[in-house]
Amino acid sequence: MQVVRTIAEFLRLKRHLCRQDASEKLRRPSVGFVPTMGNLHDGHMALIRRMQKDDDIGVASIFVNPAQFGPAEDLTKYPRTLEDDLRKCDEAGVHLVFVPDESEMYHPDRSTEVAVGEITDRYCGASRPGHFDGVSLVVAKLFNIVQPDRAYFGLKDYQQYRVIDRMARDLDFPLEVVPCPTVREWNGLAMSSRNNYLSPEEKTVASTIYAGLCAAAIAFNGGVSDAAELVRKAQAELDDAVKLEYLEVAHPETLEPRAVAERGDVMLVAAKVGATRLIDNIILGSETNNAD
Amino acid sequence: MQVVRTIAEFLRLKRHLCRQDASEKLRRPSVGFVPTMGNLHDGHMALIRRMQKDDDIGVASIFVNPAQFGPAEDLTKYPRTLEDDLRKCDEAGVHLVFVPDESEMYHPDRSTEVAVGEITDRYCGASRPGHFDGVSLVVAKLFNIVQPDRAYFGLKDYQQYRVIDRMARDLDFPLEVVPCPTVREWNGLAMSSRNNYLSPEEKTVASTIYAGLCAAAIAFNGGVSDAAELVRKAQAELDDAVKLEYLEVAHPETLEPRAVAERGDVMLVAAKVGATRLIDNIILGSETNNAD
Repeated sequence: MQVVRTIAEFLRLKRHLCRQDASEKLRRPSVGFVPTMGNLHDGHMALIRRMQKDDDIGVASIFVNPAQFGPAEDLTKYPRTLEDDLRKCDEAGVHLVFVPDESEMYHPDRSTEVAVGEITDRYCGASRPGHFDGVSLVVAKLFNIVQPDRAYFGLKDYQQYRVIDRMARDLDFPLEVVPCPTVREWNGLAMSSRNNYLSPEEKTVASTIYAGLCAAAIAFNGGVSDAAELVRKAQAELDDAVKLEYLEVAHPETLEPRAVAERGDVMLVAAKVGATRLIDNIILGSETNNAD
Repeated sequence: MQVVRTIAEFLRLKRHLCRQDASEKLRRPSVGFVPTMGNLHDGHMALIRRMQKDDDIGVASIFVNPAQFGPAEDLTKYPRTLEDDLRKCDEAGVHLVFVPDESEMYHPDRSTEVAVGEITDRYCGASRPGHFDGVSLVVAKLFNIVQPDRAYFGLKDYQQYRVIDRMARDLDFPLEVVPCPTVREWNGLAMSSRNNYLSPEEKTVASTIYAGLCAAAIAFNGGVSDAAELVRKAQAELDDAVKLEYLEVAHPETLEPRAVAERGDVMLVAAKVGATRLIDNIILGSETNNAD
């Protein structure tokens, strides 16, 4: 595994790896990509394992992207565990890890923005203004640097996945955006670097978020399609210490809110437990909500 | 030469061409790209000749991009001369011409925008709101479809060149944006598809625009650096029928207006002659304003 800190060095090494692989296999190798902000947990590792299975050359990036944090958010305290992360990537067989610093990614007079439009306005976009513009900007840049054939994103960040997928389609990025199932703790809590902020008691409280989503999904399977009723079913499961930011049923692609849920719709939730903001979601009428 | 109308077919043929060229030359071929809106004149052909000289595989695109026209602009009457354009490309040795229709380029619910920021606000951006957003969007898409090593842009559209160059830098497109000198008619008028709209008398009137720019450049070489004075020198040459929209000295990269001109600054002009809007520019203190 090689760890690279500059774009120029990344391009050089990737070209070399591709050439080597092509002459061994007598065909153009496929390149996979898992962009991360580090602090790799089992959710990230599931993406990386999927990439290692499906692609000839595996690339991961570790970059805590300032552009996607608001001024009052947790940029400085976001967990940074580079040594551990690199060991995990190495053990998983990743070929190249791109670890740029901020000056390598953002020119001091950078002015270009990538905005994916209405789909970024609701939900996390409403409570985190500019967040998805920062995400789409850095992912567009990373797509151009890495030039992968496939890029893997976790479904825990459902809105992010839809934003990236739409950006890739609208801008004709020559790659496939591959969504991967959410990985959960034993108690159902969706894996997230922000789970590090939770006390053991808060983790128990936080686990009722997924319990709520499951209750709604079970009610949907039992014939309830009124979105307000599904929301009530979910709310009934939540610990009183879960402070909801949003809990809604939405169209799975456009993320338009639904009054009446249809099979394949997504129920999206964001909530605070203590000072920690958590998100999760479930697809209604689907069997495939969990990673196996 | 092959003419391609869909992205899928383009990708297939380009891959085939690159493989063929690589096995002949035993190295990865370089791909050049000249994006156009068709109605190819000597300005375009200079870009195409430069590409054919510098790159192994030459790609041109012809697409009158609706996203860069305002509602009151000349989208429907913009000159379309596809048969002639394809003949010229063929004669110049272009390998692939991409001629998508609107539905191939723009998904009905497309929502992603690429905005290059402040540099797009002034000059043509001020009089044509949204114009440069439409340009950066279509060029980002074409860069992703064509994936060239070099893309060639004419310096007649100076602000456009700077917008594209900045977008390519800010988004890390893995290619070189190559600026090429403005090609002019015998009387100095910068080549443009919109010159088709001019009567012979209007062409004579329009030629005084370049005469004005030259007068300013000569004054600058003679020691005048006050921008207002340089503007007056240029204005003195203009025919009374030239209706100025802007005439300013600007920093060559940021396009910030200058009060005192420096060597390498650009003087930018937009003006109407009759109903036709024309643009031109000159670099102050440079020997290389004209194509040879």
